[in-house]
Amino acid sequence: LYCVSGVLAYPDPGQRKALIEQEASMQTGGRMVLTDAEKRLDARLFKMKQEELMRADFPPAMHFFKARPLIRRSPIFRTLQKMPKGARALHVHDFSMASVEWLVMNVTYWPHCYICFTDSQSIRFIFSSQWPKPKPRCSPWTLLEDLRAKMVNSSDLDNSIMGNVTIFTDQDPEEVYPSQYVVWERFEEAFLALWGLVTYAPVFREYYYQGLKEFYQDNVMYLELRALLPEIYELDGSTHDTAWTLKTYQDITRQFTAEHPDFFGARIIFTVNRGVNMSVMTRVVEKAMRLQRDFPDIMAGFDLVGREDSGRPLWYFRDALSMPSERGVTLPFFFHAGETSEYGTEVDQNILDALLLNTSRIGHGFALSRHPLAKVLSRKRGVAVEVCPISNQVLTLVKDLRNHPAAALMSEDHPLVISSDDPAMFGASGLSYDFYETFVGFGGIRSNIGSLKELLTCPCLSFRYSSLTPEQQQKALALWQTQWDKFVSENCVLL
Amino acid sequence: LYCVSGVLAYPDPGQRKALIEQEASMQTGGRMVLTDAEKRLDARLFKMKQEELMRADFPPAMHFFKARPLIRRSPIFRTLQKMPKGARALHVHDFSMASVEWLVMNVTYWPHCYICFTDSQSIRFIFSSQWPKPKPRCSPWTLLEDLRAKMVNSSDLDNSIMGNVTIFTDQDPEEVYPSQYVVWERFEEAFLALWGLVTYAPVFREYYYQGLKEFYQDNVMYLELRALLPEIYELDGSTHDTAWTLKTYQDITRQFTAEHPDFFGARIIFTVNRGVNMSVMTRVVEKAMRLQRDFPDIMAGFDLVGREDSGRPLWYFRDALSMPSERGVTLPFFFHAGETSEYGTEVDQNILDALLLNTSRIGHGFALSRHPLAKVLSRKRGVAVEVCPISNQVLTLVKDLRNHPAAALMSEDHPLVISSDDPAMFGASGLSYDFYETFVGFGGIRSNIGSLKELLTCPCLSFRYSSLTPEQQQKALALWQTQWDKFVSENCVLL
Ligand SMILES: [Zn+2]
Ligand SMILES: [Zn+2]
Repeated sequence: LYCVSGVLAYPDPGQRKALIEQEASMQTGGRMVLTDAEKRLDARLFKMKQEELMRADFPPAMHFFKARPLIRRSPIFRTLQKMPKGARALHVHDFSMASVEWLVMNVTYWPHCYICFTDSQSIRFIFSSQWPKPKPRCSPWTLLEDLRAKMVNSSDLDNSIMGNVTIFTDQDPEEVYPSQYVVWERFEEAFLALWGLVTYAPVFREYYYQGLKEFYQDNVMYLELRALLPEIYELDGSTHDTAWTLKTYQDITRQFTAEHPDFFGARIIFTVNRGVNMSVMTRVVEKAMRLQRDFPDIMAGFDLVGREDSGRPLWYFRDALSMPSERGVTLPFFFHAGETSEYGTEVDQNILDALLLNTSRIGHGFALSRHPLAKVLSRKRGVAVEVCPISNQVLTLVKDLRNHPAAALMSEDHPLVISSDDPAMFGASGLSYDFYETFVGFGGIRSNIGSLKELLTCPCLSFRYSSLTPEQQQKALALWQTQWDKFVSENCVLL
Repeated sequence: LYCVSGVLAYPDPGQRKALIEQEASMQTGGRMVLTDAEKRLDARLFKMKQEELMRADFPPAMHFFKARPLIRRSPIFRTLQKMPKGARALHVHDFSMASVEWLVMNVTYWPHCYICFTDSQSIRFIFSSQWPKPKPRCSPWTLLEDLRAKMVNSSDLDNSIMGNVTIFTDQDPEEVYPSQYVVWERFEEAFLALWGLVTYAPVFREYYYQGLKEFYQDNVMYLELRALLPEIYELDGSTHDTAWTLKTYQDITRQFTAEHPDFFGARIIFTVNRGVNMSVMTRVVEKAMRLQRDFPDIMAGFDLVGREDSGRPLWYFRDALSMPSERGVTLPFFFHAGETSEYGTEVDQNILDALLLNTSRIGHGFALSRHPLAKVLSRKRGVAVEVCPISNQVLTLVKDLRNHPAAALMSEDHPLVISSDDPAMFGASGLSYDFYETFVGFGGIRSNIGSLKELLTCPCLSFRYSSLTPEQQQKALALWQTQWDKFVSENCVLL
């Protein structure tokens, strides 16, 4: 900053240019050297971005539910879909990775699928070889097959089911979800509606396979899944334990990777709802340590999930969460922290506490910009923030995505990764929608292809906690580079 | 940060406490030493804040138009109204300082007041001794007196006029104003509706006096007004020039200050719309330099106003804006800059350019957090950001005021001042509503009375550009201190 001290007699254009360039070089991707082909693709993307900005309806300024059809028609979005995303889907939840269309149009047509209607206008499912026991506060169970047989056209029923297992709506989202509280309520209700479908063993397997496929088709080559590892049930009502569930993830990951050799794999971050009490948390952490020891390949670490504002803060669980380090046992943490608008509360300390508990990444970190000390710590330790723009907007933390706090983080190259949280729940899929909001929205008009490249390769994230050996990591990065060069050369010229 | 290097085996509560305290000390007011009475008032305010947070409808999370009745009932708001605000109304515009209720219920009842109805469903006014000339795209002029005489009850008409000269609405603001574009359109339309009233010489004088009174009643003791200094007309159609307008501000300020000895005064920041062309701007800057020379007491400096996104950037006018420094003539700048969601555009460079042009403060600076270099510069030079929370929310830059970017600025004690921009236009008045949003909203639960005290006294703002001599400044600060001590002692105990 030596060059700008002192009062200026006249604003010197040369100095202005130098300052603008200095500031641009501070941002994510700002010091990335581009090849000629990358520069050509960048010029194309810049032009597309300017055209996008001209339009009356600018998608990042709108609610995603309204913006989705516009994004789908955007040439930038279509380019981002083709972009190889390497190992960057690092914040995705287990039961929201595969599209609800696939789920409803396939799985609910399977035999033995029962439905009931709750008092709160929601639905529940169960697969069962016998007539299932009645559920409290629910209508009697009906076999879906029978229900559909009575209808001339079952598409209304299918649409209604889809509406119940997602929070996406064609209506005005601001009217349907007038407050943060209402969105969270509907969000949790949709998970309960989904539950009986996705925890049925055959569906569970197919759902995960389908989820991997959708991310793979979006050109994501590795993902880390936050998974509750619930009891999975069979048609006769018998259930499997957590280890079985984790092992099933491992088997299907291996199968998928074998069938798709350019896919690097997936790992599981075991999660528990932050609403549990201390003794349950202690048992869960003990179980997590055992699983980490028994399944070091598939298991990546541990996290707490659920609405932060209504759950218990991390510090409440400090004794349980300190057990691994006290015992010298490895259990990497990937804590959700700072997914809140509340400033100065106990919950708002989660970001600092996540760092004190030595978290490997911060889930969301929406509140990080209000915590200057935590910001310095996360930067110094290379603890990346997992930014999920669409999720934050849908859960009403931000309205116009150009003003997402990650804009400030990107402007100073804070370590961060873009992810999609619960894409199926929001009517999105894979990572491309969130990359669109990042690149066109809060990245600003000057965030260029260098920022995308850095978001996809920044060493702060490396493969530190992935199951790949250093040699495999080298191989994976080389593979990404090949895919990237192909993507750049195929897209850098107007066809 | 030395204390946190290295990996921790166990999160130490003592270290956590130290980190939380260290972070708290970094925020605005964080190092302020409180008296015992201040501590008691602070404890009361903290309790009130917690109670406010408990309620289902938390005002800072809501649109101000919906939150206003809740804020009015809030005991914190009522305390903030009583708080002496010293010289802190530093970003207020000329024709939005006095309430529209006062304007409509008084001024439109004066004789010779004509109204016409435009094609675009708005209204225009003129005072005239003769029947005024017809206005294009407007109905024939009607004498308001005649119109009211025909009505049984004129309160519908009064309400309709009030609705036209403000953008406040009782309906759902998100439906009435679906986009930033629509709000700005209505905002500019409301100013046009107001124009014929407030530029009539007798109204102009009374309006300014009333404006000073409303700020004085809100315990503001000094203000700086951004004023267009337009031609002011008399009943016979004759007009006064800019110097007359400025001199009238000076006369009424002196009159008001004489009548209210505890009021410190007011100064004028001459403003021009950023929509003008280069040759107009050159003439306006020349005029500004003359006015600054001729009226050094009342004239504070110069600024550009109007919607940044649709106006010309500062850099476009660099030649005109450099004239004062090139000629060695004093003309302090108080530029609006960064009142935008667009990131990386020419307009978005306004913040940096304002600093290059040696601005004394930054109006809004909403985009500052996306400009790390500009942020360092403004901090280093003590260039305070004039934060206008309600204005930013109404103009759709932010939805939930807890997530205003000034939360990050306050967390690191960036020089800033809270102001109200166009209070009457938003259905607010004075400064207290904006102080409420600051203290309860983005200040967070931990922003304490120290933050209020620092916001009201921070030396970064001093009286550097005010008309007060150093001795008068000392006197003014001593007077504020007396008022503050009285306020604290009267409010620190439960009555
Ligand atoms: Zn999540
Ligand atoms: Zn303004």
